[in-house]
Amino acid sequence: MSQEIKIFSPATVANVACGFDVLGFCLDSIGDEMVIRKTQNKGIKITKIEGYDLPYETEQNVAGVSALAMYNALNPDCGFEIEIYKKIKPGSGIGSSSASASGSVFGMNELLCKPLNKTQLTAFAMKGEFLASKAEHADNIAPGIFGGFTLVKSSNPLKVIVLPTPTDLYATLIHPQIEIKTSESRAILPMDVPLKNAILQWANVGSLVHALHTSDYELIKDALHDLVIEPHRKQLIPYFDTIKSDVLKAGALGCAISGSGPSIFALSKGQETALKVEKAMDKVYSKTDIKFQTYVSKINTEGIKILS
Amino acid sequence: MSQEIKIFSPATVANVACGFDVLGFCLDSIGDEMVIRKTQNKGIKITKIEGYDLPYETEQNVAGVSALAMYNALNPDCGFEIEIYKKIKPGSGIGSSSASASGSVFGMNELLCKPLNKTQLTAFAMKGEFLASKAEHADNIAPGIFGGFTLVKSSNPLKVIVLPTPTDLYATLIHPQIEIKTSESRAILPMDVPLKNAILQWANVGSLVHALHTSDYELIKDALHDLVIEPHRKQLIPYFDTIKSDVLKAGALGCAISGSGPSIFALSKGQETALKVEKAMDKVYSKTDIKFQTYVSKINTEGIKILS
Repeated sequence: MSQEIKIFSPATVANVACGFDVLGFCLDSIGDEMVIRKTQNKGIKITKIEGYDLPYETEQNVAGVSALAMYNALNPDCGFEIEIYKKIKPGSGIGSSSASASGSVFGMNELLCKPLNKTQLTAFAMKGEFLASKAEHADNIAPGIFGGFTLVKSSNPLKVIVLPTPTDLYATLIHPQIEIKTSESRAILPMDVPLKNAILQWANVGSLVHALHTSDYELIKDALHDLVIEPHRKQLIPYFDTIKSDVLKAGALGCAISGSGPSIFALSKGQETALKVEKAMDKVYSKTDIKFQTYVSKINTEGIKILS
Repeated sequence: MSQEIKIFSPATVANVACGFDVLGFCLDSIGDEMVIRKTQNKGIKITKIEGYDLPYETEQNVAGVSALAMYNALNPDCGFEIEIYKKIKPGSGIGSSSASASGSVFGMNELLCKPLNKTQLTAFAMKGEFLASKAEHADNIAPGIFGGFTLVKSSNPLKVIVLPTPTDLYATLIHPQIEIKTSESRAILPMDVPLKNAILQWANVGSLVHALHTSDYELIKDALHDLVIEPHRKQLIPYFDTIKSDVLKAGALGCAISGSGPSIFALSKGQETALKVEKAMDKVYSKTDIKFQTYVSKINTEGIKILS
């Protein structure tokens, strides 16, 4: 076993329209790169951060916090250095903190010859996520670590379900570079929801799970609606309604807020449609002063990947 | 094609713990028998009702109302007589009115050489259900007509999804013979539900759909919880908590209110466990003055059956 590993820790989309706090899927074309290195000196040390300005103190860095939680639990006879090549902008709504928190524990687990399973890795990564969002959520971590579509059945005990991924499903994303803090985005949510909307939402979740099992793209389309969260959160994202309307016209199966935003995702059948959807997104924001970035990605069914 | 058909229109369980208003499954060991007969005289006539005292006026009888809705839409060059051999007690919470409403339209459709598909039959049966419950719900009708487990994705447009049924799944039911009107049982429900409970509920619905697809009995067990409706409705059913606790001890995967009650259902892996569960239910109610009936049934994946 090598003493050093380089990994790709992908961006992820949480909630997936109808599945607030429980559903997520994994992207392929954007993610952080990280190098995890075994050292003789004990402890966890972050030795390099490129891309974005993030804290080097282990306890202040999400990758450090998750690594430390796992390290203290396993108490191995070595230490680890972590290098972070950050590609996912923090606060983008596509699982930036999750990617860091997951990457460190995944890499350490590989270097220690995999003492932990994916569920256990998810649990340690959640400790890092807590630092970023003040909540131990797995809805971005699970799709990153397991790959594909995931359903977090419960957090305590942690139970992650990996759902099938239809082969022809593509995601398109736009990241408007405005800042929405997860905490703000949570504060805008109601404590209670109308029962009739909750019923429609769980009908959609059940339908989406069935649609993923049966590769029923029409049903995926029918299920990708969010009556509970989107009406509140979309007001934080300029031009959300225009984007959504235009990408549906361009052929997307569905479109909704990615995680707590501001990124917006769409799902499409086939890469060609996904690229048309990207153009439609681009067109809306090109008319504004807001900087933005778009991505097209196959659903990543593998999750975190070893690069070298 | 014969001029007369005899059918078995099964009882059904709506809601299935986590899926209030959308999930349902079909029973095999209890149901109404109905005879539908083509006549030269036009119109719909109910000519016999045995078992329970129900109205003979077509417009006052759920089987008559659904039959009439279909009859008026198709305008066939004949009429129909309906005989109802009612076995499912009205108000039991196992789809008594649905069975009648579905049986008449199913039988007519057979005698007319199947001009309508199952979704269309469901829509007409819902007209009869409306007479009984003042709401056009399909959560009992769909499992009766399609068989197995069904998810009513939406009512308008009506979209029914048939979910896979694990082969070793058995239902046990107890029907305490007390009266709860559907309207009362609906009035007790809150207009709003806490978002955190709604999230747990849609995690459960998604998990149950996945579990049915993968025959994962442990996950079925994990998913069969109702945080939203049961806490309100169970107060209408004497000894509900005792029944639930005892049948889980007896090995049931889960236990919840059937439809709007008062029947209680449990699901088990294997007939042997389902029979133990029946004994546990029986034991609780045998100590009371309340009359009751218990049933053990395989999940009926066929739905309404032609007897002759």
